[in-house]
Amino acid sequence: MSEKALQGIKVLDFTSVLAGPYCSMMLGNMGAEIYKVEKPQGDDSRTFGPHVGGMSTYFLSLNRGKKSIVCDTRSEQGKEAFKRLAAEVDILVENLKPGAMERMGLGYDTLKEINPRLIYVAVSGFGHSGPYSSRAAYDLIAQAMGGIISITGTPGEAPVRVGASVGDIMAGMFAAFGAVSALYQRVASGTGQKVDVAMLDSQIAMLENAIAKYSANGIVPQPIGLRHPVITPFDGFETKDGHIIVACGNDRLFRALCEVLDLESLPQDERFLTNALRTEHIDALTPIIAQTLRTNTTAHWMELLLAKNVPCGPINTIDKLFEDPQVAARNMLVEVEQPDVGKIKLAGNPVKMSPVEAADEVSHDPAPEIGSHTREVLIDLLGYSAEEAEAYMDSIGG
Amino acid sequence: MSEKALQGIKVLDFTSVLAGPYCSMMLGNMGAEIYKVEKPQGDDSRTFGPHVGGMSTYFLSLNRGKKSIVCDTRSEQGKEAFKRLAAEVDILVENLKPGAMERMGLGYDTLKEINPRLIYVAVSGFGHSGPYSSRAAYDLIAQAMGGIISITGTPGEAPVRVGASVGDIMAGMFAAFGAVSALYQRVASGTGQKVDVAMLDSQIAMLENAIAKYSANGIVPQPIGLRHPVITPFDGFETKDGHIIVACGNDRLFRALCEVLDLESLPQDERFLTNALRTEHIDALTPIIAQTLRTNTTAHWMELLLAKNVPCGPINTIDKLFEDPQVAARNMLVEVEQPDVGKIKLAGNPVKMSPVEAADEVSHDPAPEIGSHTREVLIDLLGYSAEEAEAYMDSIGG
Repeated sequence: MSEKALQGIKVLDFTSVLAGPYCSMMLGNMGAEIYKVEKPQGDDSRTFGPHVGGMSTYFLSLNRGKKSIVCDTRSEQGKEAFKRLAAEVDILVENLKPGAMERMGLGYDTLKEINPRLIYVAVSGFGHSGPYSSRAAYDLIAQAMGGIISITGTPGEAPVRVGASVGDIMAGMFAAFGAVSALYQRVASGTGQKVDVAMLDSQIAMLENAIAKYSANGIVPQPIGLRHPVITPFDGFETKDGHIIVACGNDRLFRALCEVLDLESLPQDERFLTNALRTEHIDALTPIIAQTLRTNTTAHWMELLLAKNVPCGPINTIDKLFEDPQVAARNMLVEVEQPDVGKIKLAGNPVKMSPVEAADEVSHDPAPEIGSHTREVLIDLLGYSAEEAEAYMDSIGG
Repeated sequence: MSEKALQGIKVLDFTSVLAGPYCSMMLGNMGAEIYKVEKPQGDDSRTFGPHVGGMSTYFLSLNRGKKSIVCDTRSEQGKEAFKRLAAEVDILVENLKPGAMERMGLGYDTLKEINPRLIYVAVSGFGHSGPYSSRAAYDLIAQAMGGIISITGTPGEAPVRVGASVGDIMAGMFAAFGAVSALYQRVASGTGQKVDVAMLDSQIAMLENAIAKYSANGIVPQPIGLRHPVITPFDGFETKDGHIIVACGNDRLFRALCEVLDLESLPQDERFLTNALRTEHIDALTPIIAQTLRTNTTAHWMELLLAKNVPCGPINTIDKLFEDPQVAARNMLVEVEQPDVGKIKLAGNPVKMSPVEAADEVSHDPAPEIGSHTREVLIDLLGYSAEEAEAYMDSIGG
């Protein structure tokens, strides 16, 4: 099987910045053809730095391998082209505020008349129903309102956000899952449907047991820094040159850790005999382990701990990923040759299908310049005549 | 369309704790039937507190609505039942260490002989290839090695983990996306395939532009707390009773914020005329805004800011989600009536398919007791005779 899972699927990607483009990127990674429809000024994220050779690396990282078509959906010519695109594709993804598509005359109810097989995927801050539906959201607002910020950080200190935009990204991921589920359903049903994914909802889905815990015992979950709440030692520690995670899930692993650290009397200490006791006396135990780990490098401790099968790992900064042999072996940093930019590395596809090459060969294509595929798509996909295409290009000032 | 997208799909769920069960939960939310195969002692997470009425709320939150079959895969009877299950299902999900299934004689190469249409989804710490493949990982290790911890937190302070287990959850989400993509591909190809998802890979996929940024400019991304790196003010602030996020993406929104705060001279201050200037002078601007916001409640400021369409939101603690009208309107906290536990609220399904009820009516079923569906599945799905089923039940001590 050398074809990719979504080979032949066409996606009209009317999205910008992050949540929507992340969704269509996932579909593209599976082999779908992505037709990115941009307003004449282009996706807002084209202005986000750093730029290299005039290309936003932010935009590049989310839009590699997509085709770009400029469409001014406020004009009649633009609406017409948009509808003809919607008639040809399998999936439409948009991440405008709820109601915006309807105000342009391009809402789901209109488009499904044109294409009953269309799967219409809407990603928004709060979803297409409920009292906050019309509000704007950003990643930070979704993270804040969804609860994750309240359980991330050091107890008693200022709140922090998750350093990657999980407010957007989780929504994009759930949207991609919904899109493909609807695609599978369409095989039997013959019809498309609307898939409505909210950033806030996605944040709640990410909280997992914090919800059940609070529902069960009424205790509001708090941030606890790095450590595990009920397993000890299961925490991060400073080393001579960075940080290391040590995760001792049971007494055997604790003994192995103590051997490595040359602290062989510790497991006999009555305060540290069991996990429950170690957790109770964490304030006594942590400084002892911390002091020893600080005396040598992360790589040194990693080697000794791995030899004894003690779960451990460095706290990698981003540069370290570029040197990591596992990251390389899994092809998780793919090199893209971008015109005017040169070679740049981007995150690879984490969903490895068999054969693995089928997952990995995609997405090495560069990101498009604004509208660089407009004429080709109008003529080849939508059947515009050369004259009609010319008139369209004039109308967008191209 | 009242059927769910994955209605009729059967999943053999041989997973424990978090990443695997999250994947099969997502498939279950779409209407698939989940056959959770547990070792005789049960999923490890059944021991994770808090417990209510003997049921782990942790286990409950990930396994509601699944059927539980006990299977000792070290015994011949267990292997036989497992293979017969694998022959009947569409998707198998496992999250053991790579190689473990093969050592039991239940690896993909064996199972695909029995069922060439089987989609075999493996979720692991580092994936089924590469030098770290055989290492154990936990959420904390995946978060640390994947880089997210290095960009989360307050600059210069101790590292913190993301407060929800995104190391596991992202892998579960990518695995569910891969599973459904393979299911769609199978419609045309007629054959299944192996889907291999690693926690580490998934963490890298979550970093989005941090990778491209570093690749472009060689500057190692650092944590920056709560605020936006290049938009000001776009940050969280203390109020009289909590925290509020204020996100002013442009000059108009900044002027509107200043009106609300009765700081109408600020937008004329030459240090704050443009976003670039505000970002440059953030240390002068932030205390002025912070001081004013501290004088009243989050709800007070929310009302005034929303009236002027200034993007904002509270930093919700988990209890606040239980009172939020949007969370209720979107059915994101579903009530499960669990035997011996009573009513408990769990996170709902964030993928709203049309009609929305199709997404929301699922997953209100309770979580199973260990092995409570063993006999039923042996007889009804696998065709065991009553005697064979009895012998099997005896073999697992049931």
